[in-house]
Amino acid sequence: MSDIASGDMGPWLSPEDLEMVRRKVPMLYIDVLPARLGERGELEAVGLLLRGTSEGGISRALVSGRVLYHETIREALERHLEKDLGPMALPQLPLSLVPYAVGEYFPTPGGPFHDPRQHAVSLAYVVPVAGDCQPRNDTLELTWLTPTEAVTPEILGDLTDGHAVLLKRALAHAGKVL
Amino acid sequence: MSDIASGDMGPWLSPEDLEMVRRKVPMLYIDVLPARLGERGELEAVGLLLRGTSEGGISRALVSGRVLYHETIREALERHLEKDLGPMALPQLPLSLVPYAVGEYFPTPGGPFHDPRQHAVSLAYVVPVAGDCQPRNDTLELTWLTPTEAVTPEILGDLTDGHAVLLKRALAHAGKVL
Amino acid sequence: MSDIASGDMGPWLSPEDLEMVRRKVPMLYIDVLPARLGERGELEAVGLLLRGTSEGGISRALVSGRVLYHETIREALERHLEKDLGPMALPQLPLSLVPYAVGEYFPTPGGPFHDPRQHAVSLAYVVPVAGDCQPRNDTLELTWLTPTEAVTPEILGDLTDGHAVLLKRALAHAGKVL
Amino acid sequence: MSDIASGDMGPWLSPEDLEMVRRKVPMLYIDVLPARLGERGELEAVGLLLRGTSEGGISRALVSGRVLYHETIREALERHLEKDLGPMALPQLPLSLVPYAVGEYFPTPGGPFHDPRQHAVSLAYVVPVAGDCQPRNDTLELTWLTPTEAVTPEILGDLTDGHAVLLKRALAHAGKVL
Repeated sequence: MSDIASGDMGPWLSPEDLEMVRRKVPMLYIDVLPARLGERGELEAVGLLLRGTSEGGISRALVSGRVLYHETIREALERHLEKDLGPMALPQLPLSLVPYAVGEYFPTPGGPFHDPRQHAVSLAYVVPVAGDCQPRNDTLELTWLTPTEAVTPEILGDLTDGHAVLLKRALAHAGKVL
Repeated sequence: MSDIASGDMGPWLSPEDLEMVRRKVPMLYIDVLPARLGERGELEAVGLLLRGTSEGGISRALVSGRVLYHETIREALERHLEKDLGPMALPQLPLSLVPYAVGEYFPTPGGPFHDPRQHAVSLAYVVPVAGDCQPRNDTLELTWLTPTEAVTPEILGDLTDGHAVLLKRALAHAGKVL
Repeated sequence: MSDIASGDMGPWLSPEDLEMVRRKVPMLYIDVLPARLGERGELEAVGLLLRGTSEGGISRALVSGRVLYHETIREALERHLEKDLGPMALPQLPLSLVPYAVGEYFPTPGGPFHDPRQHAVSLAYVVPVAGDCQPRNDTLELTWLTPTEAVTPEILGDLTDGHAVLLKRALAHAGKVL
Repeated sequence: MSDIASGDMGPWLSPEDLEMVRRKVPMLYIDVLPARLGERGELEAVGLLLRGTSEGGISRALVSGRVLYHETIREALERHLEKDLGPMALPQLPLSLVPYAVGEYFPTPGGPFHDPRQHAVSLAYVVPVAGDCQPRNDTLELTWLTPTEAVTPEILGDLTDGHAVLLKRALAHAGKVL
């Protein structure tokens, strides 16, 4: 995974160490919904990453990733946005680090948010993006959707349960409840 | 006052009518602290309006004004920012209309916030400004101050009590408490 | 209307004066969703007022009302909660006056929120209620609904558009998005 | 430390394992400022823990502690409040898990918040407490202070830098800026 090998972010964490740590403490994540705003700040569109799955299907996701040892939340936001949207996206990181939602994911099935790998706690932000997005890595494309388009069952069904809820909470936060 | 003569904002309100209304219901205001953000969204500087007083002194203020009949909050933010910062300021209005603070001002002295003209309730926002600010009307200049500079007793003393509190609460909201 | 006759709230406002003021400036309102919380603070149920309509049907609503001249927002919250839930409801007013949502209602049809009487701006809060609620005035009952029950089309259809959106945004704010 | 031995919270974490994990990933914490509210929800007093130091002095602190593997944030809030305030404190946990501030602590000196043991990220909450507080463990007492008393240099000087900032940001969040 790209987010464990950044040599300048504290001590290197081997895959074995990461696996071990993941069974001992909650892992800190950030989730980001990229957004296009209108002239007066209204939410016009949200960006969802589209990826192919190993089973040949597709899935959609918010920009998401781990906060590394010694890394600030702002650095983690910048790093994951650049990783997923490319270097020309011109994201406007938030003035306040207070998230619009806090997600909790547990390795045991049954709860609302499930992550088989780990117990994770995620700070969720909406980040306006003014530039040109060029998805990288394994992302097929970044799809821009209006709030109305984003909450159709088809789109929500391509997201994990946790990301579908974070998307709907972001729309409510922005005053776009449909 | 400039904010009562906009003929395109619902029925025109004469000075006499405004005076009368001000003694009958709370008046809705917006207060805006212009901000310069760093590359990663951190608050780097805040902008305060500097004005001459009728006694020959100076006073400082946030961008502030009334929400007119038939006007949305976003339109009021845009109008007052343009009025005080000029047309090239390029303000980024907030995604969410939830303010970082709500101010209450009463015509009776004694409480924390006093406005001899009226009972006013104000929704307060921090608005990043990316462009060139050219103060207009009776404003001498827009002064950019770091968070540390802004909370010196000299600066706070040039603000009304209400605006001094809104400034300090904005800094706290942005994680800049000194 | 009950909310214009409180003689201790600044100068008395005659129905004619209120009618006149309503066509000149935005009117400030509060909207409150009463809530029952679980042991650990989770939202367990929300309370909706049930009323008969003049056409013989029913409608549902949040606790809602005007902020009077000279009245603080906390006083307005207390007054409207007591008016609609009775004196034994034991509401826990919020620590912070920052609302979870700001509603805007305009007298012209077509926008999302419509109020034929006036231009109104509403500060919306969720208020936990620990005591015994005895609806008064023209309210038939206060109905407690789980988040799942509250967002059924039947319930949402009994609310005005504005209150349906405020209800859904309150659930999102509380982490209950369904 | 008391917060690592709860056998019912996922796999037991030995002191050696904890030490190791602390050098590999950010640790998730919660910080809580206990509060007494007035009848209308206004912040009347905040509670600070008073402890003796190994050098024979005293220090003050917010309620603070780690979120354990498999533990929800609400469970962590409840556990740390009971650990520090006793079982009769009757805390009212928040409706929303969105914190009023996010704290970041790094093991390297120089930044604003320093924790020599680890990189920690803390979600901060104000929690009203209605019952009887009986501090336990190594806490000498819980001191209730008005907002004005709490921000005197003597009190702030007994807090770590990080907790002094969280206290001031909590007062700002509650509308009590002095």
